[in-house]
Amino acid sequence: MPLTERELLAWLAPRAAQGREVALGIGHDAAVVTSPSGDGLVLKSDQTLEEVHFRRGEQGFEWVGRKALARVLSDIGAVGGRPVAALCSLSVPSDLPEADVKALFDGLLRLAAEHSVSLVGGDLARSPRGVTIDIAGLGFLEGRAPLRRDGARPGDLLVVTGPLGGSRARHHLAFEPRWRAGVALAASGAVHACIDLSDGLARDLRQVAAASRVGARIELEALPRRRGGDGAPATIEQALHDGEDYELLFALPEAAWSELRGAPALAALACAVVGRVEAEGAGLTTIDGAGRSAPLASGGYEHTLGA
Amino acid sequence: MPLTERELLAWLAPRAAQGREVALGIGHDAAVVTSPSGDGLVLKSDQTLEEVHFRRGEQGFEWVGRKALARVLSDIGAVGGRPVAALCSLSVPSDLPEADVKALFDGLLRLAAEHSVSLVGGDLARSPRGVTIDIAGLGFLEGRAPLRRDGARPGDLLVVTGPLGGSRARHHLAFEPRWRAGVALAASGAVHACIDLSDGLARDLRQVAAASRVGARIELEALPRRRGGDGAPATIEQALHDGEDYELLFALPEAAWSELRGAPALAALACAVVGRVEAEGAGLTTIDGAGRSAPLASGGYEHTLGA
Repeated sequence: MPLTERELLAWLAPRAAQGREVALGIGHDAAVVTSPSGDGLVLKSDQTLEEVHFRRGEQGFEWVGRKALARVLSDIGAVGGRPVAALCSLSVPSDLPEADVKALFDGLLRLAAEHSVSLVGGDLARSPRGVTIDIAGLGFLEGRAPLRRDGARPGDLLVVTGPLGGSRARHHLAFEPRWRAGVALAASGAVHACIDLSDGLARDLRQVAAASRVGARIELEALPRRRGGDGAPATIEQALHDGEDYELLFALPEAAWSELRGAPALAALACAVVGRVEAEGAGLTTIDGAGRSAPLASGGYEHTLGA
Repeated sequence: MPLTERELLAWLAPRAAQGREVALGIGHDAAVVTSPSGDGLVLKSDQTLEEVHFRRGEQGFEWVGRKALARVLSDIGAVGGRPVAALCSLSVPSDLPEADVKALFDGLLRLAAEHSVSLVGGDLARSPRGVTIDIAGLGFLEGRAPLRRDGARPGDLLVVTGPLGGSRARHHLAFEPRWRAGVALAASGAVHACIDLSDGLARDLRQVAAASRVGARIELEALPRRRGGDGAPATIEQALHDGEDYELLFALPEAAWSELRGAPALAALACAVVGRVEAEGAGLTTIDGAGRSAPLASGGYEHTLGA
């Protein structure tokens, strides 16, 4: 029987003893460790794998390098960190042209420069097994309390920072990591939970709801849907389940949102209220334009590990 | 023509703009970033790859997990850091038994507990391409100036923290990372250069010599050689070139070594003076028991990247 990522994490978390420096451990978008002088350090690593996250020949390697770093900047932002530095561990097969290796770093370094992130090191290896990239990122909290997954409360609004769905076309390579929004959310002190949408709204909301022990209702008509190259918006199904949106989903009181939505880092984005947090007993539901309620279907990407 | 790791780093280093937080960037065993309050943060990632660093079936997966973390603790120590936290990015093929995944984490977590290191997060994925592990580690300098590769000076002694060679049998899985020695070396303020021996003494010494713009002479009779399971010591060739020793090699003035060798973290190890730093023009040479000098042969493991 296959072991899912969630099952492995449930097995792992209680076994991974956490030292007193650890402010936020396994189970959030990124970890937080406290430095000797009390600085909040955000840490996250994310893999970008051939045949999982990209296919050779479908896009230039500069997009692969860009995406590998952008995924980590998104996660650091989802706990309220400003990304500062990154390590790149790369393994490539011997038949990969040198130009592709350099294009990968060109794309990575361009995004790093845009976000004032320094590539400070890593590890390079030749592997017979395809291209694998793992980026580890460091961010600074600069006095902000980290955003968590487990604090959503009934009555909170659920807000996303941009349109969802249809990411497979191009967006999954070219998205802008929303860490500036995450920094603004953390700085407000009013946000109860936050997650970055990598596995699809339905699945990621389920993570927040489970961690926070709450239910939630999504208003289907309120879902902002990304338009594809042909101008047609994603379907509601795609907006719920496609994944690789890399927008932030967060929960906060309605009054706090009224104040916070005008903050420059949020006003610059197409933020949308997509639903509300409810009591745990209400479960996860959707409501359509005609007022019909239904259980939120499962879906999205489930990582499975081990046979 | 294949691109070596060194060639890629030479291409990459000037392109990777470093922010003002970066105290030590690409080109050392680990990077150092300064936190907002001035704490020295040591960062390093290292990959452990199937068919490169281990073969399935040749050892239990607990040894693979142990090695993956130990490699990073060794690197953090080589710049004088105390390791504190780690992220684990793991991808496994779907045919890997669940018991192997858990054994891997058991071995990793056991070593983490022995060294008071917290596993705080990472990334888990299924990959069609074999088992790949990338560990990113965080260490604290706690006021020490980092050990570098580029400060060795003519006249310095060259010292290693333990026996070399013959690592393939067992040592490459079971070695003890020497970060406590690295912390003592950094705390002394007297060590001019340090590197951890992963690619073989000859090759790693060449890195220090090139970065420091010096030459060096190795006394072959002085090389401490690891004994195998049969009690026979490694050959001199093995001690020079085998790699995966994970001892520290460092350069410091003779007077400083007289004082420092009694420090508990160093006195506990089988440290040995193996040669001296010389002027750049002298190149890299060996001298045998009969006083015969010869150029230090190349050898050891050269990572090659890209076609």
